[in-house]
Amino acid sequence: MNYKLVFHILGLILRVEAALMLPATMIAFATGGGDGMAFLLSAGITVAAGQALTMLPGKNAKMQARDGFAAVALSWIVLSLFGALPYVFSGVLPNYADAFFETVSGFTTTGATVFTFIEGQPLGVLFWRAQTQWMGGVGVLVMALALVPKLGEGSVFLMRAESPGPIKSKLTPRIGDTAKILYSIYIGLTVAEAVCLRIAGMPWFDAIIHAFTSISTGGFSVKDASIAAYNSLAIEWIIIVFMFLSGINFALLFYAIRRNFKAVFQSEELRSYTFMVLVASGLIVLNLVVHAGWAFNARTVTDSVFQVVTLMTTTGYMTYDYVKWPTFSQVILILVMFAGGCAGSTAGGIKQIRVTLLIKNLHREVEQILHPRVVKTLRSDGERVEESTLSGITLFFFAYILLLLIGTLVVAWDDVGFTSAFTASLTCISNVGPAFDVLGPTSNFAMLSNVSKVVLSTGMLLGRLEIMPLLLLLFPGLWRRR
Amino acid sequence: MNYKLVFHILGLILRVEAALMLPATMIAFATGGGDGMAFLLSAGITVAAGQALTMLPGKNAKMQARDGFAAVALSWIVLSLFGALPYVFSGVLPNYADAFFETVSGFTTTGATVFTFIEGQPLGVLFWRAQTQWMGGVGVLVMALALVPKLGEGSVFLMRAESPGPIKSKLTPRIGDTAKILYSIYIGLTVAEAVCLRIAGMPWFDAIIHAFTSISTGGFSVKDASIAAYNSLAIEWIIIVFMFLSGINFALLFYAIRRNFKAVFQSEELRSYTFMVLVASGLIVLNLVVHAGWAFNARTVTDSVFQVVTLMTTTGYMTYDYVKWPTFSQVILILVMFAGGCAGSTAGGIKQIRVTLLIKNLHREVEQILHPRVVKTLRSDGERVEESTLSGITLFFFAYILLLLIGTLVVAWDDVGFTSAFTASLTCISNVGPAFDVLGPTSNFAMLSNVSKVVLSTGMLLGRLEIMPLLLLLFPGLWRRR
Repeated sequence: MNYKLVFHILGLILRVEAALMLPATMIAFATGGGDGMAFLLSAGITVAAGQALTMLPGKNAKMQARDGFAAVALSWIVLSLFGALPYVFSGVLPNYADAFFETVSGFTTTGATVFTFIEGQPLGVLFWRAQTQWMGGVGVLVMALALVPKLGEGSVFLMRAESPGPIKSKLTPRIGDTAKILYSIYIGLTVAEAVCLRIAGMPWFDAIIHAFTSISTGGFSVKDASIAAYNSLAIEWIIIVFMFLSGINFALLFYAIRRNFKAVFQSEELRSYTFMVLVASGLIVLNLVVHAGWAFNARTVTDSVFQVVTLMTTTGYMTYDYVKWPTFSQVILILVMFAGGCAGSTAGGIKQIRVTLLIKNLHREVEQILHPRVVKTLRSDGERVEESTLSGITLFFFAYILLLLIGTLVVAWDDVGFTSAFTASLTCISNVGPAFDVLGPTSNFAMLSNVSKVVLSTGMLLGRLEIMPLLLLLFPGLWRRR
Repeated sequence: MNYKLVFHILGLILRVEAALMLPATMIAFATGGGDGMAFLLSAGITVAAGQALTMLPGKNAKMQARDGFAAVALSWIVLSLFGALPYVFSGVLPNYADAFFETVSGFTTTGATVFTFIEGQPLGVLFWRAQTQWMGGVGVLVMALALVPKLGEGSVFLMRAESPGPIKSKLTPRIGDTAKILYSIYIGLTVAEAVCLRIAGMPWFDAIIHAFTSISTGGFSVKDASIAAYNSLAIEWIIIVFMFLSGINFALLFYAIRRNFKAVFQSEELRSYTFMVLVASGLIVLNLVVHAGWAFNARTVTDSVFQVVTLMTTTGYMTYDYVKWPTFSQVILILVMFAGGCAGSTAGGIKQIRVTLLIKNLHREVEQILHPRVVKTLRSDGERVEESTLSGITLFFFAYILLLLIGTLVVAWDDVGFTSAFTASLTCISNVGPAFDVLGPTSNFAMLSNVSKVVLSTGMLLGRLEIMPLLLLLFPGLWRRR
């Protein structure tokens, strides 16, 4: 590993984080919640640590893939370690494991929480909590690249390691320009949603928070009852639309803005994503009407669509406590949590493109028995997919399930039942938020042991960074100085 | 598809099945359970159907891979359809879906049951039930090959499609000889276990039944309380040893008999299998002692080892109702159900060799980031593993999880809770037997709908035939006449 370079990036990232603590600091002082000093102290420590890291001596060398992966993995860990400080210093989460869990849940846009009473927290804390999701949504390194574009050509490795999905599309020749386009779309969507929510009757503070946490598909709310607290179909549908948009590959949103609708409609991933939302919602409506005796009306349809979109885009709000639904509806929700949104969006999960390619690949494998001598190449959106990409995707799937099961085992030690342990692990690695059974959307993760909290936090990071960068940290070869 | 050839094989298989109904027929008449005529009638119908299939006209052509796969998939379906007749005719399972479920559960050596009161069934039925497992253990086509060795060189395709595991080892140049060796080991183990169980105090009938169902890793018992009914440490350890042996690749058992211990000890699969049994048992003992307050004694160790070995070898007996154990122990048991035994054994599950190669492959994928220009080949037991084998294994894993989740969704419609639905689907595709929660080892599958029973039966067949042959049946291209 190129220590000098990696530490330089870490130092940069920490100073950006310290700067981004300032809005919450101002809100904290302005609202007098007593958490202002906690933010000032945290920002001070973070900037000092960032400064120290950049001063590390060593020689500068060209960035390689491994450095990019290491920088991304370590950045996210370090960001979370320091981002947890305001929770601890303000006293709202005195246990550091709790604060770390909440911060990782923020940055990874998971939305799982250890707060047992959200509405009682100071506004600065609530703002910081939502802001971590908004920062993590598009990626903290992408953000840093947009702000400080001097990392040169090596930055392509950072972008590759941080942005989700197996196939990377560069919208522009220069990586910095791509980052700027993504950020413009991101900010545009956030502003648009905040305004819509305000018009629909939400107070400004709530509107901004929920815009932050739905465009990032994070799911933190300022209400204990989440979106159910507003009891408004208009607000629910606004949020459904923006969550759905945030689960689409941002490159497609860019094409749509450029009126290149052909590129949008020919996207197989978008079709599979839309199809899955419709089928899952339809099946839940059917199940609720047939099995649970719900009336077939706007409320039932909205609750079904909302829960499907919020869990499939891995946001994690709720308008109805779905653990009270029949098993079939719950399994539908668990399945969409596996699949997740599109690659290149802010959503988590395995991603639609991978699911599509996995099924195509399986189809080809069976077909091979019929035609043993024909070697068929797979295509996605008309373009050939490399065999190495395909085998990478199938291995990714294996790693996903393996880590999911390991997480389940660790949480199981807390004796919460299989459903809770399994879905807690799934909701974290898929960056969704709420789980099922005793860890459902009206509950929280405070009951778990510190070991479970740290392991689930690791699961969130694994999910957000798509596994490989973090696994790489376990290889001694990475740590050899170059 | 070569219809003439495939139908010829189906006809042969059915006549063999009819012949194998005779022992149960004799026992039925001898014990006067009133089920004798049901067996005679079933055997008559089966032999007639077999005769009719062989008389189908058409031209004989050379067997291809696709014909082998189709013959195996259709054989198992047809065998189960006819094997269900005695249950229906004798009136013990008047619902054909129940009878089909029980028969598939037998042939696939799953051991899931719809009987609510086993001890009240006629002895002929109990014998037939155990015998289906014994027949399915090594493979019905392998058996037919050993009995009627005239299918010629094409039979290698049958063996390939029916015997479990990604890497096929031929013990002898001639496939028929390999089948005979396997059958000799199989019969030898069965006789040895029956004698041991008799000596340990089991009545002869029970000893033979349990030998049938443990060497085949099936798990059907003649007692409602399974092995717990005998309340004997000696019997439990005899069964543990024979289940463990039956989960080992029979090729290794052959080498051991030939005193080629080097081949046995260098087997990575055997090591991983043994390691997993020891670690899983150890963790459960730890969990029971620490969490559930069990004493650290022979009873605790035996219960832990027994439940691990019975579920990992996918047998499915029980000596303790493990759904009453803490969550952690239950998750351990669920994990070993995923992994299963060794390839080339009678055990189900994903198989140890696949798990080992998946982990090696993932390790290589991460290492590739460190050394992008080095292409490393993977080895198993010192031999190079082809890339196509590796990608086949990873895709197999995906198919396994996909089908598991589809099964979960279907069973979920019966509103039994996520844990029950998920583990019911898992226990069937892994050919284990009992599930968890309301479908645990003291319960049975009678409560499920006919749709769930048929889907779970399909899951058992998919698991036993390792997915591909059955998926192939869905391809219209297969059904074109050649």
